[in-house]
Amino acid sequence: MHHVRFRDDTGTVRTGEYAPADEEIVSHPSDAAVALEPEQFDPAEVEFLPPCEPTKVVCVGLNYADHAAEQGKEVPDRPLLFLKPPNTLAAHGETVTLLPDKERIDHEAELAVVVGERAKGLDESEAMEYVAGFTCLNDLSNRDDQRREQNWVRGKAFDDSCPLGPVVATPDEVPADAAVRCRLNGETVQDSSRDEFIFSVPELLAEITQYLTLEPGDVVSTGTPAGVGPVSDGDTVEVEVEGVGTLRTHVEIP
Amino acid sequence: MHHVRFRDDTGTVRTGEYAPADEEIVSHPSDAAVALEPEQFDPAEVEFLPPCEPTKVVCVGLNYADHAAEQGKEVPDRPLLFLKPPNTLAAHGETVTLLPDKERIDHEAELAVVVGERAKGLDESEAMEYVAGFTCLNDLSNRDDQRREQNWVRGKAFDDSCPLGPVVATPDEVPADAAVRCRLNGETVQDSSRDEFIFSVPELLAEITQYLTLEPGDVVSTGTPAGVGPVSDGDTVEVEVEGVGTLRTHVEIP
Repeated sequence: MHHVRFRDDTGTVRTGEYAPADEEIVSHPSDAAVALEPEQFDPAEVEFLPPCEPTKVVCVGLNYADHAAEQGKEVPDRPLLFLKPPNTLAAHGETVTLLPDKERIDHEAELAVVVGERAKGLDESEAMEYVAGFTCLNDLSNRDDQRREQNWVRGKAFDDSCPLGPVVATPDEVPADAAVRCRLNGETVQDSSRDEFIFSVPELLAEITQYLTLEPGDVVSTGTPAGVGPVSDGDTVEVEVEGVGTLRTHVEIP
Repeated sequence: MHHVRFRDDTGTVRTGEYAPADEEIVSHPSDAAVALEPEQFDPAEVEFLPPCEPTKVVCVGLNYADHAAEQGKEVPDRPLLFLKPPNTLAAHGETVTLLPDKERIDHEAELAVVVGERAKGLDESEAMEYVAGFTCLNDLSNRDDQRREQNWVRGKAFDDSCPLGPVVATPDEVPADAAVRCRLNGETVQDSSRDEFIFSVPELLAEITQYLTLEPGDVVSTGTPAGVGPVSDGDTVEVEVEGVGTLRTHVEIP
């Protein structure tokens, strides 16, 4: 199953199903007193919304050894965590307006976990029961400020720095070695896979929930592979996770 | 005006007025088709709620020179920022359950700003127009992990680490040199004032909103003065901000 949230041309927020090979979004009307027929929508005609509504996005740095090497950092002995609050979210197909006057804002393609149930103090063995599914995330990173601050707030939590989507794919749709890729204006610039993670999804969820309760719809992102690089005004960035689909973002830098 | 949110003995969430000298909470019924008489509640009989519903709490480190010296840190050239997500919130009168097996979790008494209107790219000169008021915040800090991590997530964003309240006092209620104090089991351990800030409230809001949009109900905390110290199981911590009132928190460490 591939769950999508979108706004139709009347402004109504809807949910539906939209898998990578589908030509149509199928929306099942809810809140109806009687069973209604599903409706079809053209994905080119709707406004995608982030596929979930997180209270927080917990991100992980340096979770691929090749990216740690590229950044000149040691592989950490426990996950390096940071936070993106809701002001950072952007949807599939959206034009993000990024910070002006920065030397370098980078794309970071990531596989992200969407939490399905409130989770606190999880054991690794049970962690996957709390996962609704996976989506694509672009951890846009303002290197100018990231390098200068203790906590990466200006560097990682700025408006529009977290494109997310297009769908939440249930875990059975996403292979254990799912490809994680980034294309910048059509050219592949990051290309790795989920089996290169230093910390697995259950390890990440167990570690995070020792400290922070995760709520339904919260997102845990799993880090980015090698190949990060700068985006410029007018660029189109695509994050692809095999089994999920492709998250497309247009970049505007005033 | 001193705005409070609470749950009455039927479980209904209500809003009302509750100033420091008041013996009663006065609640004005809303959502009524006709004007109704205000109702009185005994503050000892209600369950206080956080006085606003932030999507994020943006905190400031080292905003009093005496606390920077106590931590052995230089005064920063721009505000040191970090984030507390909604899982950290706790209300006035609540017992917070903190992380077990830590050497040191500290109290940090703070004056916090509650945002009244969506705010982005503010100038200092207009920043106060976006402030709904002030409240008390206890930035509970897990030093064991804070010292070991790049971003203070385990250190500052753990569950129950952000007691907030009891009320939002409008800016006219809080003097420019309002006292900011902490009492640990009745003994005063922090005692400073708002006029000791390194960065003023307008300076903080202007800096933060260059990067992050603040939403109504979001909180910006203004840092803590000297005198931070550890809390233990069974302690009662009170944060007092002159003109706001006193936020009381009971500590449980399993």
